[in-house]
Amino acid sequence: MTVTASASPAIETHAGTHRFPAGKALRLDSGATLEPLEIAYETYGRLNEARTNAILVCHALTGDQHAASIHPVTGKPGWWSRVIGPGLPLDPERYFIISTNVVGGCMGSTGPASQDARTGEPYGLTFPVITIADMVRAQALLVEALGIETLLAVVGGSMGGMQVLQWAADYPEKLFSAVCIAAAARHSAQNIAFHEVGRQAIMADPEWRAGAYMKARVRPEKGLAVARMAAHITYLSEQALQRKFGRELQRDGLSWGFDADFQVESYLRHQGTSFVDRFDANSYLYITRALDYFDLAAQHGGVLANAFAKARGVRFCVLSFSSDWLYSTAESRDIVRALNAAGCRASFVEIETDKGHDAFFLDEPQLDATLRGFFAATAHARGLA
Amino acid sequence: MTVTASASPAIETHAGTHRFPAGKALRLDSGATLEPLEIAYETYGRLNEARTNAILVCHALTGDQHAASIHPVTGKPGWWSRVIGPGLPLDPERYFIISTNVVGGCMGSTGPASQDARTGEPYGLTFPVITIADMVRAQALLVEALGIETLLAVVGGSMGGMQVLQWAADYPEKLFSAVCIAAAARHSAQNIAFHEVGRQAIMADPEWRAGAYMKARVRPEKGLAVARMAAHITYLSEQALQRKFGRELQRDGLSWGFDADFQVESYLRHQGTSFVDRFDANSYLYITRALDYFDLAAQHGGVLANAFAKARGVRFCVLSFSSDWLYSTAESRDIVRALNAAGCRASFVEIETDKGHDAFFLDEPQLDATLRGFFAATAHARGLA
Repeated sequence: MTVTASASPAIETHAGTHRFPAGKALRLDSGATLEPLEIAYETYGRLNEARTNAILVCHALTGDQHAASIHPVTGKPGWWSRVIGPGLPLDPERYFIISTNVVGGCMGSTGPASQDARTGEPYGLTFPVITIADMVRAQALLVEALGIETLLAVVGGSMGGMQVLQWAADYPEKLFSAVCIAAAARHSAQNIAFHEVGRQAIMADPEWRAGAYMKARVRPEKGLAVARMAAHITYLSEQALQRKFGRELQRDGLSWGFDADFQVESYLRHQGTSFVDRFDANSYLYITRALDYFDLAAQHGGVLANAFAKARGVRFCVLSFSSDWLYSTAESRDIVRALNAAGCRASFVEIETDKGHDAFFLDEPQLDATLRGFFAATAHARGLA
Repeated sequence: MTVTASASPAIETHAGTHRFPAGKALRLDSGATLEPLEIAYETYGRLNEARTNAILVCHALTGDQHAASIHPVTGKPGWWSRVIGPGLPLDPERYFIISTNVVGGCMGSTGPASQDARTGEPYGLTFPVITIADMVRAQALLVEALGIETLLAVVGGSMGGMQVLQWAADYPEKLFSAVCIAAAARHSAQNIAFHEVGRQAIMADPEWRAGAYMKARVRPEKGLAVARMAAHITYLSEQALQRKFGRELQRDGLSWGFDADFQVESYLRHQGTSFVDRFDANSYLYITRALDYFDLAAQHGGVLANAFAKARGVRFCVLSFSSDWLYSTAESRDIVRALNAAGCRASFVEIETDKGHDAFFLDEPQLDATLRGFFAATAHARGLA
């Protein structure tokens, strides 16, 4: 997704990778276990003595732990530098902010590009299929390893929001509050369809080599770029694309060929080619699969409210963007309705914007104001100064 | 696009390819000329003595001249068999219906898979870039060659609707009426973006070989299938995908792998793999390019109404589908507004349906009723029995 953010001023940052001891292998929904398990993470700020100011930030499909630090590959500010920083809604001077790379990812957490201890080779397609619940289970292990019993908040957008919902379902006793932004409680047929196009694009690339490309020292760059291009269209609203690019040309006049004539073509090509520098194609397959498998109601007898039955003590905030057609406001309303039915305390804000799904990365004052207000109220309720 | 139609009863059909004499080379918008020019076409019914009952049917991106006949490759009924036939809105017992394969196509009209007379090799990427106006210019030559001075109607959906608009702009004196279904007067940034994904998928396939795959006797099947999959999502509404497939599985339980677990995945894969049997990858590049270049207002000083300045004598019917997000109702309204501003007679119908863009191929009683009514009134106004 698009990252446009200004660099944050210096904040107390710790970057590390937690390697769990053998007894802490990750049990997966598929029945497999992952061992050894490593989770790459960053923290911003300091855990208070009472250990009550920790906030877990969950990333989206192609995000990573570099939420508020310079990305080591792109050199750009982290994906949520607009929100995390001194004076910003998630202020490291007040909160201890934890950001992890999801299991299955490619920025240090155990994923398909990791070495399989049994073979000494990268997993590739022998990596087990993972779920959103598996990602959350790994995060819960890390939070426990950091000595934190209760999170002041768990927060995330898009796939990050799905992790938030899963946290509320699986570990409600460890949460004081939960903020779910631009997400859905399940992947729709259209969501699955777009992901399947991306996966087929990757698997159609002969350099993919049935997932064993690392061994051959090649990468399915063209296929991954096409996958990214297709997905990227869904991150922007039709209006935002029209406003940003319209039918503006790259040069004076048409090329009468297949060069990028239109600025929107050039933009999309750039999104594709720059993505392959920072992302692993197999991780893309596994994480999109985890999203497609996500259906929180199905995990709870087909009734979404049941997922939140034990979360009555959690303060929820649900946000959506009016022009988001990937995970629409209607899907956020379904979540709110289920929270209400379960007797949970939930506030809901639909933010009017034409920026589409990616609005949660972008300059969106109402988002900032909502987060700022919610976290301030939450901190107050938790007795933080 | 999806073709679901029942076979039409036997109708008087002529199938042929018109090869224009050397003097009738096609001048193209790019400045190039196409020679020799061949246009493959079919006709249904009989031209009356007054030559006043001819209706030209224009096809969409992946359509062809087999509008109401069995498709020679797929063995399925033609893409508009639901509309063309005895007792149907376009009745060959009343009308002489002409259906052509567009220039740049791959079902017999001159296109990138045709032999370049100068080299004796298939054109491939040496084929000139074509426009919607070029397609219409070729159709006008054919209509003239068939001895028809005025068409009772020109009708088409999607890209077919764009040809209809172009006809009204370029040959208003040859039209009695024009029916534009689920189209737009220009390609939006999002439209261009989706096409660019498809083109990049094709060009990423090593078997594409810079367009010279025919010479190597290979085909970029995987790339073309991915292109089709991405485009196909845009032909259906989110609701239609959800209603048809939802999260229904192919088998009992998940595969925990990358097989097609969900029915929507299997459906999309089928759309991709079956498409490559009947369509040429380079034609896909050229025709999507023609669509992206389409901007009728830009051709007329930036004012869409100017395109219709000479079309005051033409009876227009504009139709849109409420759930079409490829070419939305708002874009049809823009067309109607321009027609009104130009002083043209235009009726407009938005059909309430959840089927999305592809509704014009599908069982949609209100579409049938509207077409039936419009053609009956048009025939009556033209003095046909």
